[in-house]
Amino acid sequence: MSEVGTLVLLRHGESEWNAKNLFTGWVDVDLSAQGEAEARRGGELIRESGLLPDVVHTSVLRRAIRTSEIALHTADRHWIPVQRTWRLNERHYGALQGKNKKQTLDEFGEEQFMLWRRSYDTPPPAIADDDEWSQAGDARYAALPPELRPKTECLKDVVARMLPYWYDQIVPQLLNGKTVLVAAHGNSLRALVKHLDGISDEAIAKLNIPTGIPLRYDLDADLKPITAGGTYLDPQAAKEAAEAVANQGRK
Amino acid sequence: MSEVGTLVLLRHGESEWNAKNLFTGWVDVDLSAQGEAEARRGGELIRESGLLPDVVHTSVLRRAIRTSEIALHTADRHWIPVQRTWRLNERHYGALQGKNKKQTLDEFGEEQFMLWRRSYDTPPPAIADDDEWSQAGDARYAALPPELRPKTECLKDVVARMLPYWYDQIVPQLLNGKTVLVAAHGNSLRALVKHLDGISDEAIAKLNIPTGIPLRYDLDADLKPITAGGTYLDPQAAKEAAEAVANQGRK
Repeated sequence: MSEVGTLVLLRHGESEWNAKNLFTGWVDVDLSAQGEAEARRGGELIRESGLLPDVVHTSVLRRAIRTSEIALHTADRHWIPVQRTWRLNERHYGALQGKNKKQTLDEFGEEQFMLWRRSYDTPPPAIADDDEWSQAGDARYAALPPELRPKTECLKDVVARMLPYWYDQIVPQLLNGKTVLVAAHGNSLRALVKHLDGISDEAIAKLNIPTGIPLRYDLDADLKPITAGGTYLDPQAAKEAAEAVANQGRK
Repeated sequence: MSEVGTLVLLRHGESEWNAKNLFTGWVDVDLSAQGEAEARRGGELIRESGLLPDVVHTSVLRRAIRTSEIALHTADRHWIPVQRTWRLNERHYGALQGKNKKQTLDEFGEEQFMLWRRSYDTPPPAIADDDEWSQAGDARYAALPPELRPKTECLKDVVARMLPYWYDQIVPQLLNGKTVLVAAHGNSLRALVKHLDGISDEAIAKLNIPTGIPLRYDLDADLKPITAGGTYLDPQAAKEAAEAVANQGRK
Protein backbone atom coordinates (compact mmCIF):
# COMPACT_ATOMS: atom_id res chain seq x y z
CA MET A 1 0.00 0.00 0.00
CA SER A 2 1.31 3.45 -0.86
CA GLU A 3 1.64 5.94 1.98
CA VAL A 4 -0.80 8.29 0.29
CA GLY A 5 -4.43 7.17 0.66
CA THR A 6 -6.74 6.07 -2.12
CA LEU A 7 -9.34 8.24 -3.80
CA VAL A 8 -12.62 6.68 -4.98
CA LEU A 9 -15.01 8.70 -7.13
CA LEU A 10 -18.66 7.73 -7.53
CA ARG A 11 -21.03 9.54 -9.87
CA HIS A 12 -24.69 9.31 -8.83
CA GLY A 13 -26.97 7.12 -10.88
CA GLU A 14 -30.03 8.07 -12.89
CA SER A 15 -32.19 10.79 -11.36
CA GLU A 16 -35.86 11.47 -11.95
CA TRP A 17 -34.87 14.26 -14.33
CA ASN A 18 -32.21 12.24 -16.18
CA ALA A 19 -35.07 9.87 -16.92
CA LYS A 20 -37.18 12.80 -18.19
CA ASN A 21 -34.24 14.27 -20.18
CA LEU A 22 -34.31 17.62 -18.34
CA PHE A 23 -31.33 19.85 -17.45
CA THR A 24 -30.99 19.52 -13.68
CA GLY A 25 -27.96 21.39 -12.32
CA TRP A 26 -28.67 22.57 -8.76
CA VAL A 27 -32.35 21.50 -8.81
CA ASP A 28 -32.61 18.93 -6.02
CA VAL A 29 -34.30 15.97 -7.71
CA ASP A 30 -34.27 12.44 -6.31
CA LEU A 31 -32.78 9.28 -7.77
CA SER A 32 -35.00 7.15 -9.99
CA ALA A 33 -35.48 3.46 -9.11
CA GLN A 34 -32.73 2.74 -11.65
CA GLY A 35 -30.48 5.28 -9.93
CA GLU A 36 -31.03 3.53 -6.60
CA ALA A 37 -30.10 0.21 -8.21
CA GLU A 38 -26.93 1.81 -9.64
CA ALA A 39 -25.99 3.05 -6.17
CA ARG A 40 -26.45 -0.45 -4.74
CA ARG A 41 -24.28 -1.87 -7.50
CA GLY A 42 -21.65 0.77 -6.73
CA GLY A 43 -21.73 -0.32 -3.10
CA GLU A 44 -21.37 -3.98 -4.08
CA LEU A 45 -18.33 -3.15 -6.22
CA ILE A 46 -16.78 -1.28 -3.28
CA ARG A 47 -17.47 -4.17 -0.93
CA GLU A 48 -16.15 -6.79 -3.36
CA SER A 49 -13.00 -4.74 -4.05
CA GLY A 50 -12.09 -4.63 -0.37
CA LEU A 51 -11.44 -0.90 -0.91
CA LEU A 52 -13.15 0.36 2.22
CA PRO A 53 -13.76 4.12 2.49
CA ASP A 54 -12.70 5.81 5.73
CA VAL A 55 -14.62 8.99 5.00
CA VAL A 56 -17.17 10.17 2.41
CA HIS A 57 -17.66 13.58 0.80
CA THR A 58 -20.89 14.51 -0.97
CA SER A 59 -22.53 17.54 -2.47
CA VAL A 60 -25.60 19.02 -0.77
CA LEU A 61 -27.87 17.57 -3.47
CA ARG A 62 -30.17 14.67 -2.75
CA ARG A 63 -29.13 12.46 -5.66
CA ALA A 64 -25.48 12.40 -4.56
CA ILE A 65 -26.35 12.13 -0.87
CA ARG A 66 -28.69 9.18 -1.44
CA THR A 67 -26.16 7.52 -3.75
CA SER A 68 -23.56 7.69 -0.97
CA GLU A 69 -26.03 6.45 1.63
CA ILE A 70 -27.21 3.49 -0.45
CA ALA A 71 -23.70 2.54 -1.58
CA LEU A 72 -22.25 2.76 1.93
CA HIS A 73 -25.08 0.77 3.51
CA THR A 74 -24.51 -1.89 0.83
CA ALA A 75 -20.75 -1.87 1.47
CA ASP A 76 -21.35 -2.02 5.27
CA ARG A 77 -19.53 1.33 5.69
CA HIS A 78 -22.61 3.40 6.59
CA TRP A 79 -20.93 4.45 9.87
CA ILE A 80 -17.96 6.38 8.43
CA PRO A 81 -17.70 10.17 8.84
CA VAL A 82 -19.65 12.27 6.32
CA GLN A 83 -18.77 15.69 4.94
CA ARG A 84 -21.08 17.64 2.63
CA THR A 85 -20.35 20.74 0.59
CA TRP A 86 -21.97 22.86 -2.12
CA ARG A 87 -18.49 22.90 -3.71
CA LEU A 88 -19.11 19.34 -4.95
CA ASN A 89 -22.52 20.25 -6.43
CA GLU A 90 -23.33 19.61 -10.07
CA ARG A 91 -22.59 22.48 -12.45
CA HIS A 92 -25.29 25.16 -12.15
CA TYR A 93 -27.08 25.03 -15.48
CA GLY A 94 -28.41 28.60 -15.31
CA ALA A 95 -31.59 29.37 -17.21
CA LEU A 96 -31.52 25.88 -18.76
CA GLN A 97 -32.46 24.27 -15.41
CA GLY A 98 -35.80 22.55 -15.78
CA LYS A 99 -35.67 22.71 -19.59
CA ASN A 100 -35.98 19.62 -21.79
CA LYS A 101 -32.67 18.74 -23.46
CA LYS A 102 -34.20 17.65 -26.74
CA GLN A 103 -36.38 20.79 -26.97
CA THR A 104 -33.35 22.96 -26.14
CA LEU A 105 -31.38 21.21 -28.92
CA ASP A 106 -34.22 21.77 -31.40
CA GLU A 107 -34.73 25.41 -30.35
CA PHE A 108 -31.13 26.59 -30.26
CA GLY A 109 -29.44 24.18 -32.65
CA GLU A 110 -26.57 21.74 -32.35
CA GLU A 111 -23.78 24.32 -32.09
CA GLN A 112 -25.27 26.38 -29.25
CA PHE A 113 -26.47 23.23 -27.48
CA MET A 114 -23.01 21.66 -27.52
CA LEU A 115 -21.41 24.96 -26.47
CA TRP A 116 -23.59 25.08 -23.35
CA ARG A 117 -23.13 21.40 -22.62
CA ARG A 118 -19.45 20.99 -23.34
CA SER A 119 -17.52 24.21 -23.80
CA TYR A 120 -15.08 24.81 -20.97
CA ASP A 121 -15.71 28.50 -20.42
CA THR A 122 -19.11 29.45 -21.88
CA PRO A 123 -21.89 29.29 -19.29
CA PRO A 124 -25.58 29.16 -20.22
CA PRO A 125 -27.63 32.34 -19.60
CA ALA A 126 -28.01 33.17 -15.88
CA ILE A 127 -31.17 31.99 -14.14
CA ALA A 128 -33.55 34.69 -12.84
CA ASP A 129 -34.14 34.79 -9.07
CA ASP A 130 -37.86 34.39 -9.66
CA ASP A 131 -37.40 31.43 -12.00
CA GLU A 132 -39.25 28.35 -10.78
CA TRP A 133 -35.94 26.45 -10.73
CA SER A 134 -33.76 29.11 -9.10
CA GLN A 135 -32.04 28.34 -5.76
CA ALA A 136 -32.35 31.99 -4.65
CA GLY A 137 -34.42 31.13 -1.55
CA ASP A 138 -32.88 27.74 -0.77
CA ALA A 139 -32.04 27.41 2.95
CA ARG A 140 -28.99 25.23 2.32
CA TYR A 141 -27.17 28.14 0.65
CA ALA A 142 -28.35 30.81 3.10
CA ALA A 143 -24.90 31.10 4.71
CA LEU A 144 -23.19 31.83 1.38
CA PRO A 145 -22.67 35.47 0.39
CA PRO A 146 -24.14 36.45 -3.00
CA GLU A 147 -20.79 36.35 -4.82
CA LEU A 148 -20.46 32.62 -3.99
CA ARG A 149 -23.97 31.70 -5.16
CA PRO A 150 -23.89 30.98 -8.87
CA LYS A 151 -26.76 31.77 -11.21
CA THR A 152 -25.04 29.82 -13.97
CA GLU A 153 -21.72 28.04 -14.38
CA CYS A 154 -19.39 26.70 -17.02
CA LEU A 155 -17.02 23.84 -16.21
CA LYS A 156 -14.22 26.35 -15.57
CA ASP A 157 -16.36 27.88 -12.82
CA VAL A 158 -16.89 24.44 -11.31
CA VAL A 159 -13.14 23.78 -11.25
CA ALA A 160 -12.59 27.13 -9.51
CA ARG A 161 -15.12 26.53 -6.73
CA MET A 162 -14.35 22.81 -6.33
CA LEU A 163 -10.56 23.02 -6.00
CA PRO A 164 -10.45 24.86 -2.63
CA TYR A 165 -12.43 21.97 -1.13
CA TRP A 166 -10.12 19.42 -2.72
CA TYR A 167 -7.02 21.13 -1.34
CA ASP A 168 -8.36 22.02 2.10
CA GLN A 169 -10.50 19.00 3.00
CA ILE A 170 -9.71 15.97 0.82
CA VAL A 171 -5.95 16.24 0.25
CA PRO A 172 -5.08 16.30 3.99
CA GLN A 173 -7.09 13.10 4.46
CA LEU A 174 -5.32 11.42 1.53
CA LEU A 175 -1.93 12.51 2.89
CA ASN A 176 -3.04 10.96 6.18
CA GLY A 177 -3.42 7.60 4.38
CA LYS A 178 -7.23 7.55 4.29
CA THR A 179 -9.39 5.91 1.65
CA VAL A 180 -11.64 8.79 0.59
CA LEU A 181 -14.95 8.36 -1.25
CA VAL A 182 -16.31 11.32 -3.20
CA ALA A 183 -19.95 10.81 -4.20
CA ALA A 184 -20.86 13.60 -6.56
CA HIS A 185 -21.95 14.63 -10.05
CA GLY A 186 -20.93 14.36 -13.68
CA ASN A 187 -19.41 17.82 -13.84
CA SER A 188 -17.96 18.20 -10.34
CA LEU A 189 -16.19 14.87 -10.89
CA ARG A 190 -15.07 15.89 -14.39
CA ALA A 191 -13.63 19.04 -12.80
CA LEU A 192 -11.69 16.94 -10.30
CA VAL A 193 -10.48 14.43 -12.91
CA LYS A 194 -9.40 17.31 -15.17
CA HIS A 195 -7.26 18.60 -12.33
CA LEU A 196 -5.86 15.20 -11.32
CA ASP A 197 -4.98 13.99 -14.81
CA GLY A 198 -3.96 17.41 -16.16
CA ILE A 199 -6.51 17.23 -18.98
CA SER A 200 -6.58 20.24 -21.32
CA ASP A 201 -9.54 22.62 -21.57
CA GLU A 202 -10.28 21.14 -25.00
CA ALA A 203 -9.88 17.45 -24.21
CA ILE A 204 -12.12 17.53 -21.12
CA ALA A 205 -15.12 18.09 -23.42
CA LYS A 206 -14.90 14.48 -24.57
CA LEU A 207 -14.49 12.92 -21.14
CA ASN A 208 -17.59 11.20 -19.76
CA ILE A 209 -17.67 9.59 -16.33
CA PRO A 210 -20.15 6.73 -16.12
CA THR A 211 -22.69 6.59 -13.31
CA GLY A 212 -22.62 4.15 -10.41
CA ILE A 213 -19.20 2.62 -11.13
CA PRO A 214 -16.54 3.53 -8.55
CA LEU A 215 -13.41 5.03 -10.11
CA ARG A 216 -10.25 4.39 -8.12
CA TYR A 217 -7.24 6.72 -8.13
CA ASP A 218 -3.97 5.66 -6.52
CA LEU A 219 -1.85 8.75 -6.07
CA ASP A 220 1.82 9.49 -5.63
CA ALA A 221 3.27 11.79 -2.96
CA ASP A 222 2.48 14.82 -5.15
CA LEU A 223 -1.15 13.69 -5.46
CA LYS A 224 -0.63 12.77 -9.11
CA PRO A 225 -2.38 9.62 -10.44
CA ILE A 226 -0.10 6.58 -10.63
CA THR A 227 -2.33 5.31 -13.45
CA ALA A 228 -3.63 8.12 -15.68
CA GLY A 229 -7.41 8.20 -15.69
CA GLY A 230 -7.65 5.92 -12.67
CA THR A 231 -9.15 2.43 -12.67
CA TYR A 232 -12.85 1.61 -12.72
CA LEU A 233 -13.89 -1.18 -10.37
CA ASP A 234 -15.90 -2.63 -13.28
CA PRO A 235 -13.97 -1.61 -16.43
CA GLN A 236 -16.26 -3.31 -18.94
CA ALA A 237 -19.42 -1.74 -17.53
CA ALA A 238 -17.64 1.64 -17.39
CA LYS A 239 -16.80 1.43 -21.09
CA GLU A 240 -20.37 0.61 -22.08
CA ALA A 241 -21.84 3.26 -19.76
CA ALA A 242 -19.51 6.01 -20.99
CA GLU A 243 -20.70 5.38 -24.55
CA ALA A 244 -24.32 5.68 -23.41
CA VAL A 245 -23.65 9.00 -21.60
CA ALA A 246 -22.02 10.42 -24.73
CA ASN A 247 -25.31 9.96 -26.57
CA GLN A 248 -27.39 11.57 -23.82
CA GLY A 249 -29.81 14.32 -24.83
CA ARG A 250 -30.20 13.03 -28.38
CA LYS A 251 -33.29 10.92 -27.96
CA MET B 1 -37.12 32.15 19.83
CA SER B 2 -34.79 31.71 22.76
CA GLU B 3 -31.11 32.46 22.24
CA VAL B 4 -30.21 28.88 23.04
CA GLY B 5 -30.96 26.48 20.20
CA THR B 6 -33.51 23.69 20.22
CA LEU B 7 -32.77 20.02 20.84
CA VAL B 8 -34.78 17.35 19.03
CA LEU B 9 -34.42 13.70 20.04
CA LEU B 10 -35.51 10.88 17.73
CA ARG B 11 -35.43 7.23 18.77
CA HIS B 12 -35.08 4.81 15.86
CA GLY B 13 -38.10 2.75 14.90
CA GLU B 14 -38.54 -1.00 14.94
CA SER B 15 -35.48 -3.00 13.92
CA GLU B 16 -35.35 -6.50 12.52
CA TRP B 17 -34.42 -7.75 15.97
CA ASN B 18 -37.08 -5.75 17.82
CA ALA B 19 -39.50 -7.58 15.57
CA LYS B 20 -37.89 -10.91 16.57
CA ASN B 21 -37.79 -9.93 20.28
CA LEU B 22 -33.98 -10.30 20.56
CA PHE B 23 -31.60 -8.23 22.70
CA THR B 24 -29.67 -6.09 20.22
CA GLY B 25 -27.30 -3.64 21.91
CA TRP B 26 -24.31 -3.01 19.65
CA VAL B 27 -25.28 -5.65 17.07
CA ASP B 28 -25.77 -3.68 13.84
CA VAL B 29 -29.18 -4.80 12.63
CA ASP B 30 -31.25 -2.92 10.09
CA LEU B 31 -34.65 -1.28 10.45
CA SER B 32 -37.71 -3.39 9.68
CA ALA B 33 -40.20 -2.10 7.11
CA GLN B 34 -42.22 -0.79 10.06
CA GLY B 35 -39.12 0.97 11.39
CA GLU B 36 -38.63 2.67 8.02
CA ALA B 37 -42.25 3.82 8.10
CA GLU B 38 -41.72 5.19 11.63
CA ALA B 39 -38.68 7.14 10.42
CA ARG B 40 -40.71 8.64 7.57
CA ARG B 41 -43.43 9.62 10.03
CA GLY B 42 -40.77 11.21 12.24
CA GLY B 43 -39.56 13.22 9.25
CA GLU B 44 -43.12 14.31 8.43
CA LEU B 45 -43.61 15.52 12.01
CA ILE B 46 -40.37 17.49 11.81
CA ARG B 47 -41.39 19.03 8.48
CA GLU B 48 -44.90 19.88 9.69
CA SER B 49 -43.57 21.41 12.90
CA GLY B 50 -41.34 23.82 11.00
CA LEU B 51 -38.59 22.82 13.47
CA LEU B 52 -35.78 22.45 10.98
CA PRO B 53 -32.57 20.76 12.17
CA ASP B 54 -29.30 22.55 11.37
CA VAL B 55 -27.16 19.53 12.23
CA VAL B 56 -27.75 15.85 13.03
CA HIS B 57 -25.91 13.54 15.41
CA THR B 58 -26.23 9.76 15.16
CA SER B 59 -24.66 6.65 16.64
CA VAL B 60 -22.52 4.42 14.41
CA LEU B 61 -25.31 1.84 14.24
CA ARG B 62 -27.31 1.30 11.09
CA ARG B 63 -30.78 1.55 12.62
CA ALA B 64 -30.11 5.06 13.98
CA ILE B 65 -28.22 6.16 10.86
CA ARG B 66 -31.01 5.01 8.53
CA THR B 67 -33.64 6.58 10.76
CA SER B 68 -31.84 9.92 10.47
CA GLU B 69 -31.40 9.54 6.73
CA ILE B 70 -35.05 8.63 6.07
CA ALA B 71 -36.40 11.30 8.44
CA LEU B 72 -34.17 14.04 7.01
CA HIS B 73 -34.94 13.16 3.38
CA THR B 74 -38.64 13.30 4.29
CA ALA B 75 -38.18 16.66 6.04
CA ASP B 76 -36.11 18.00 3.09
CA ARG B 77 -33.10 18.50 5.41
CA HIS B 78 -30.95 15.69 3.97
CA TRP B 79 -28.17 18.22 3.22
CA ILE B 80 -27.37 19.31 6.81
CA PRO B 81 -24.04 18.40 8.42
CA VAL B 82 -23.82 14.92 9.96
CA GLN B 83 -21.81 13.80 12.99
CA ARG B 84 -21.59 10.17 14.10
CA THR B 85 -20.23 8.75 17.33
CA TRP B 86 -20.11 5.44 19.20
CA ARG B 87 -20.93 7.54 22.30
CA LEU B 88 -24.56 7.68 21.12
CA ASN B 89 -24.74 3.91 20.57
CA GLU B 90 -27.39 1.80 22.25
CA ARG B 91 -26.40 0.29 25.60
CA HIS B 92 -24.11 -2.71 25.08
CA TYR B 93 -26.16 -5.66 26.24
CA GLY B 94 -23.17 -7.90 26.99
CA ALA B 95 -23.71 -11.64 26.80
CA LEU B 96 -27.45 -11.09 26.27
CA GLN B 97 -26.85 -9.74 22.74
CA GLY B 98 -28.52 -12.04 20.24
CA LYS B 99 -30.62 -13.75 22.97
CA ASN B 100 -34.40 -13.94 22.84
CA LYS B 101 -36.00 -11.70 25.46
CA LYS B 102 -38.82 -14.10 26.27
CA GLN B 103 -36.44 -17.07 26.63
CA THR B 104 -34.15 -14.97 28.83
CA LEU B 105 -37.12 -14.04 31.01
CA ASP B 106 -38.16 -17.69 31.31
CA GLU B 107 -34.61 -18.88 31.99
CA PHE B 108 -33.52 -16.28 34.55
CA GLY B 109 -36.82 -15.19 36.03
CA GLU B 110 -38.59 -11.87 36.34
CA GLU B 111 -36.30 -10.36 38.97
CA GLN B 112 -32.99 -10.98 37.18
CA PHE B 113 -34.56 -10.05 33.82
CA MET B 114 -35.79 -6.70 35.11
CA LEU B 115 -32.47 -6.05 36.86
CA TRP B 116 -30.61 -6.43 33.58
CA ARG B 117 -33.18 -4.44 31.65
CA ARG B 118 -33.87 -1.63 34.06
CA SER B 119 -31.46 -1.38 36.99
CA TYR B 120 -29.28 1.70 36.77
CA ASP B 121 -25.96 0.16 37.74
CA THR B 122 -26.09 -3.62 37.20
CA PRO B 123 -24.79 -4.64 33.76
CA PRO B 124 -25.51 -8.04 32.20
CA PRO B 125 -22.59 -10.52 32.07
CA ALA B 126 -19.78 -9.42 29.73
CA ILE B 127 -19.78 -10.77 26.19
CA ALA B 128 -16.88 -13.05 25.20
CA ASP B 129 -14.63 -11.82 22.36
CA ASP B 130 -15.37 -15.02 20.42
CA ASP B 131 -19.14 -14.69 20.89
CA GLU B 132 -20.98 -14.56 17.57
CA TRP B 133 -22.44 -11.18 18.59
CA SER B 134 -19.26 -9.56 19.97
CA GLN B 135 -17.93 -6.36 18.36
CA ALA B 136 -14.32 -7.35 19.11
CA GLY B 137 -13.26 -7.30 15.44
CA ASP B 138 -15.56 -4.51 14.23
CA ALA B 139 -13.65 -1.99 12.08
CA ARG B 140 -15.74 0.95 13.25
CA TYR B 141 -14.28 0.66 16.77
CA ALA B 142 -10.72 -0.09 15.68
CA ALA B 143 -9.47 3.37 16.72
CA LEU B 144 -10.78 2.96 20.30
CA PRO B 145 -8.37 1.67 22.95
CA PRO B 146 -9.58 -1.43 24.85
CA GLU B 147 -10.66 0.48 27.94
CA LEU B 148 -13.20 2.44 25.86
CA ARG B 149 -14.70 -0.66 24.19
CA PRO B 150 -17.44 -2.06 26.40
CA LYS B 151 -18.21 -5.77 26.69
CA THR B 152 -21.35 -4.95 28.63
CA GLU B 153 -22.98 -1.81 29.99
CA CYS B 154 -25.55 -0.67 32.49
CA LEU B 155 -27.37 2.64 31.99
CA LYS B 156 -24.89 4.33 34.34
CA ASP B 157 -22.09 3.34 31.96
CA VAL B 158 -24.04 4.81 29.04
CA VAL B 159 -24.47 8.11 30.87
CA ALA B 160 -20.72 8.20 31.57
CA ARG B 161 -19.65 7.62 27.95
CA MET B 162 -22.43 9.73 26.40
CA LEU B 163 -22.01 12.91 28.47
CA PRO B 164 -18.55 13.92 27.12
CA TYR B 165 -20.08 14.00 23.62
CA TRP B 166 -23.04 16.03 24.86
CA TYR B 167 -20.79 18.60 26.53
CA ASP B 168 -18.11 18.78 23.83
CA GLN B 169 -20.09 18.50 20.58
CA ILE B 170 -23.80 19.18 21.11
CA VAL B 171 -23.84 21.90 23.81
CA PRO B 172 -21.62 24.31 21.81
CA GLN B 173 -24.00 24.00 18.84
CA LEU B 174 -27.03 24.68 21.06
CA LEU B 175 -25.29 27.69 22.62
CA ASN B 176 -24.67 28.84 19.06
CA GLY B 177 -28.45 28.86 18.49
CA LYS B 178 -28.62 25.74 16.32
CA THR B 179 -31.52 23.32 16.07
CA VAL B 180 -29.82 20.00 16.82
CA LEU B 181 -31.30 16.60 15.95
CA VAL B 182 -30.04 13.55 17.85
CA ALA B 183 -31.11 10.29 16.18
CA ALA B 184 -30.22 7.49 18.52
CA HIS B 185 -31.41 4.63 20.72
CA GLY B 186 -33.71 3.89 23.65
CA ASN B 187 -30.96 3.85 26.23
CA SER B 188 -28.59 6.52 24.89
CA LEU B 189 -31.59 8.87 24.73
CA ARG B 190 -32.75 7.81 28.22
CA ALA B 191 -29.24 8.64 29.44
CA LEU B 192 -29.48 12.10 27.90
CA VAL B 193 -33.00 12.75 29.18
CA LYS B 194 -31.95 11.60 32.66
CA HIS B 195 -29.21 14.22 32.60
CA LEU B 196 -31.38 16.99 31.14
CA ASP B 197 -34.36 16.52 33.44
CA GLY B 198 -32.33 15.55 36.50
CA ILE B 199 -34.16 12.23 36.86
CA SER B 200 -33.05 10.05 39.78
CA ASP B 201 -31.31 6.70 39.34
CA GLU B 202 -34.51 5.01 40.54
CA ALA B 203 -37.06 6.99 38.53
CA ILE B 204 -35.24 6.57 35.20
CA ALA B 205 -36.18 2.86 35.27
CA LYS B 206 -39.78 3.76 34.51
CA LEU B 207 -39.05 6.21 31.70
CA ASN B 208 -39.71 4.91 28.19
CA ILE B 209 -39.05 6.98 25.09
CA PRO B 210 -41.32 6.04 22.19
CA THR B 211 -39.85 5.31 18.77
CA GLY B 212 -40.17 7.55 15.72
CA ILE B 213 -41.77 10.53 17.48
CA PRO B 214 -39.50 13.59 17.70
CA LEU B 215 -39.11 14.91 21.26
CA ARG B 216 -38.41 18.63 21.45
CA TYR B 217 -36.48 20.29 24.27
CA ASP B 218 -36.35 24.06 24.58
CA LEU B 219 -33.53 24.94 26.94
CA ASP B 220 -32.60 27.88 29.11
CA ALA B 221 -29.18 29.50 29.21
CA ASP B 222 -27.96 26.80 31.63
CA LEU B 223 -29.14 24.08 29.22
CA LYS B 224 -32.00 23.13 31.55
CA PRO B 225 -35.36 22.19 29.98
CA ILE B 226 -37.90 25.02 30.02
CA THR B 227 -40.61 22.33 30.05
CA ALA B 228 -39.63 19.26 32.09
CA GLY B 229 -39.64 16.13 29.94
CA GLY B 230 -39.74 18.11 26.72
CA THR B 231 -42.62 18.10 24.24
CA TYR B 232 -43.39 15.33 21.75
CA LEU B 233 -44.31 16.55 18.28
CA ASP B 234 -47.22 14.07 18.40
CA PRO B 235 -48.17 13.83 22.10
CA GLN B 236 -51.06 11.39 21.71
CA ALA B 237 -49.01 8.93 19.63
CA ALA B 238 -46.14 9.26 22.13
CA LYS B 239 -48.43 8.31 25.02
CA GLU B 240 -49.72 5.22 23.23
CA ALA B 241 -46.24 4.18 22.06
CA ALA B 242 -44.68 4.56 25.52
CA GLU B 243 -47.25 2.17 26.92
CA ALA B 244 -46.43 -0.37 24.20
CA VAL B 245 -42.66 -0.13 24.91
CA ALA B 246 -43.26 -0.75 28.63
CA ASN B 247 -44.77 -4.13 27.76
CA GLN B 248 -41.89 -5.10 25.44
CA GLY B 249 -40.29 -8.51 26.01
CA ARG B 250 -43.40 -10.00 27.58
CA LYS B 251 -44.95 -11.57 24.53
